[in-house]
Amino acid sequence: MRMVDCIEKKVNHEELTHDEIQFVVDGFVSGEIPDYQMSALMMAIVLNDMNEREAADLTLSMMCSGDTVDLSDLPGVKVDKHSSGGVGDTTTLVIAPLVAACGGTVAKMSGRGLAFSGGTLDKLESIPGVNIGQPIARFKEIVRKTGVCVIGQNGNLVPADKKMYALRDVTGTVQSVPLIAASIMSKKLAAGSDAIVLDVKVGSGAFMKTVDDAKRLAGLMVKMGKHLKREVVAVVTDMNQPLGLSVGNALEFREAVQLLSGQLPVGDPLLEVCLLLGTQMLLLSKLAKSDEEARGMRQQAIENGAGLSKLRAMIHELGGDETLLTLEGMDKLCRVKRQVPVTAEKSGYVIGMQAELIGRAAQVLGAGRETKVDVIDPAVGLIMHKRVGDPIQAGEAICTLYVNDEKNLDDAISTMKEAVQIGAKPDHVAPMVYAVIR
Amino acid sequence: MRMVDCIEKKVNHEELTHDEIQFVVDGFVSGEIPDYQMSALMMAIVLNDMNEREAADLTLSMMCSGDTVDLSDLPGVKVDKHSSGGVGDTTTLVIAPLVAACGGTVAKMSGRGLAFSGGTLDKLESIPGVNIGQPIARFKEIVRKTGVCVIGQNGNLVPADKKMYALRDVTGTVQSVPLIAASIMSKKLAAGSDAIVLDVKVGSGAFMKTVDDAKRLAGLMVKMGKHLKREVVAVVTDMNQPLGLSVGNALEFREAVQLLSGQLPVGDPLLEVCLLLGTQMLLLSKLAKSDEEARGMRQQAIENGAGLSKLRAMIHELGGDETLLTLEGMDKLCRVKRQVPVTAEKSGYVIGMQAELIGRAAQVLGAGRETKVDVIDPAVGLIMHKRVGDPIQAGEAICTLYVNDEKNLDDAISTMKEAVQIGAKPDHVAPMVYAVIR
Repeated sequence: MRMVDCIEKKVNHEELTHDEIQFVVDGFVSGEIPDYQMSALMMAIVLNDMNEREAADLTLSMMCSGDTVDLSDLPGVKVDKHSSGGVGDTTTLVIAPLVAACGGTVAKMSGRGLAFSGGTLDKLESIPGVNIGQPIARFKEIVRKTGVCVIGQNGNLVPADKKMYALRDVTGTVQSVPLIAASIMSKKLAAGSDAIVLDVKVGSGAFMKTVDDAKRLAGLMVKMGKHLKREVVAVVTDMNQPLGLSVGNALEFREAVQLLSGQLPVGDPLLEVCLLLGTQMLLLSKLAKSDEEARGMRQQAIENGAGLSKLRAMIHELGGDETLLTLEGMDKLCRVKRQVPVTAEKSGYVIGMQAELIGRAAQVLGAGRETKVDVIDPAVGLIMHKRVGDPIQAGEAICTLYVNDEKNLDDAISTMKEAVQIGAKPDHVAPMVYAVIR
Repeated sequence: MRMVDCIEKKVNHEELTHDEIQFVVDGFVSGEIPDYQMSALMMAIVLNDMNEREAADLTLSMMCSGDTVDLSDLPGVKVDKHSSGGVGDTTTLVIAPLVAACGGTVAKMSGRGLAFSGGTLDKLESIPGVNIGQPIARFKEIVRKTGVCVIGQNGNLVPADKKMYALRDVTGTVQSVPLIAASIMSKKLAAGSDAIVLDVKVGSGAFMKTVDDAKRLAGLMVKMGKHLKREVVAVVTDMNQPLGLSVGNALEFREAVQLLSGQLPVGDPLLEVCLLLGTQMLLLSKLAKSDEEARGMRQQAIENGAGLSKLRAMIHELGGDETLLTLEGMDKLCRVKRQVPVTAEKSGYVIGMQAELIGRAAQVLGAGRETKVDVIDPAVGLIMHKRVGDPIQAGEAICTLYVNDEKNLDDAISTMKEAVQIGAKPDHVAPMVYAVIR
């Protein structure tokens, strides 16, 4: 078998066989297939696509390229959750403990922030003492003890994805539905859960920019799950504005604690998406039989504080100071040198937001990394005061920036002004949920 | 400027600017742009194409990546000729001396055989003593003395093409009209002639498989010439069967000598294509005012032996034994251990040939290289006895194989049987010339 023949097949719109895909992934990981051939093939996939069977084979080959985690000795249905990345999306910190409080088992490996999108690991590390680099044995011990653990990706899981992603990032081959699907699903499958709930974000603050692409990605991952005998449900949700009002690591952690303390009003978008994702996780875990039952269970775990207790227990096990997980403790973590409001220049209605720019504004203040070696300041970021559709007066605050280092403050202010569009009349507001695909 | 942005523009069907193309070529040649990014960009070009302006800019940047030859101190209009590669195509050995015999100036750099297609340099080297590695000063001295010289590519001409071609060859990115056009034209332009006649081959024995692709390639190269202030004419000719009856290095040289000795009948395809290409070269050289005048001049240079004299003079200057350039001398060079006829298995008409397979049959007998280090046997190859449209009887010879090493003889025989299709009734015969584009 020759790599150049595999590339030429893809150029000519032919289907790659199971064996060819295995050959490509194995050869690339071992170094026998050089980067320049792999990037040519990935570009051919970006432009000529892959069908479901090819994408499933790619996922399986990638998953098998390294270690896999065996969770079978843990009790119950192990359920995982993945979001395709967004701004102000702190759902993992809410749902993982909530599902555990309802009797579920959540053993989850999370990622770092990428470009404008936040990452759960960075948010966890805003609590002093937290160590997300736990060995697998300890990770499972925590799950057994508390029902929930979220750590960083561990050991030699899916080396094919690491190597492919590094190459895709510099060769213009990130935007491919089957390559994104295989990247996500190979990691989720290797992490060992029985069931997976996927949250595919769509809009200005997501990697998927159109609903059609997002639905295709969601549908493809659900079908892959079936191919590979895992239960997978995907929801497609809006990311044309930040999901929560907070953007920044400790700020988002605080919003999660507020939610788990029952402080967010009914209809709050972050709360609603958390309830939707949690419902799917409880259904897949066989802990609830209907949407209503699941919704009630989670509502109760918020009201009686069981969810927050689970989050505290997990933070304690990860070495963090769990006593900070109160409304007052979180305020302390979010203390900064200056709070700077960004005000509207005209009156009218918020008719649109560029969520990606809002993510970038938080990033330049120090909430995210530009390069892998940048250090994050957990306290900085911003709090939105308006959502799309809200009326606004000239001079009224759109958001408040949380600032420690003023170096990029002007940049953050002008980015925020560019990010929020104000019009004379209210415009169409995008729905919060586009589809649930199972 | 970042390479990844250039790649993403091409992925999104955007046009690359002159500066971006210059950046890509310079960066790739200097090594700042790694192979894996270049192969991704080339795959995006293969699948999303380039427009004429981009292709012209690419050609210019490639041409300027290394040395260029200055022929301005040679007298008259310097005219070059290029064929896109085929089987049994010995036109250069005929036309270059013929045009010189008519007063033209031909200073040409040629290539080696590639895969199934023959190369002029290998044919020249079938004459003992010939050295195609002449320095530029000596090359120009030969042209000044004899009006014609054909040598190998010399010095650091178009390093961008060498590096790009090596990468394209292993990354499935050979088949792209703008990349092929830029590869051919950058080399032709760097070689310094004022005017260029291009022979774009189309059919089973050519790199272009459809007339549309061949016409597009021809048209693109003509337009590039105009962009870059050179006179370019392109003809699109058939390569669904070998052009001459001989396939192999000394065998093809012999056929050229036969042609220049007036031994080929009127209407012979090799003769007709040579007359067509020669006409275009004489018109561009301003040595003839009309097709008829040019045709008459070349006819005369065959009849009075002036063309053959020029070929002898050139071979002498290249260090070769020019006394071999007689019909008897050539027969001596084509002596082999065995001549093996390949016979028809049924009676009927030759309705088609796979010229590529005929090239491969000659190659496996030792006339071509499989790898760069293979040594060519100049005497071996094959002579066709039939052309498409000819009637044939069962047991009659389709061709005669010229064999020294019998190792691959069976392979060559079965390849030839596969290459020639015999049907009950004569079928459509492809025209010899599809288009002349100026």
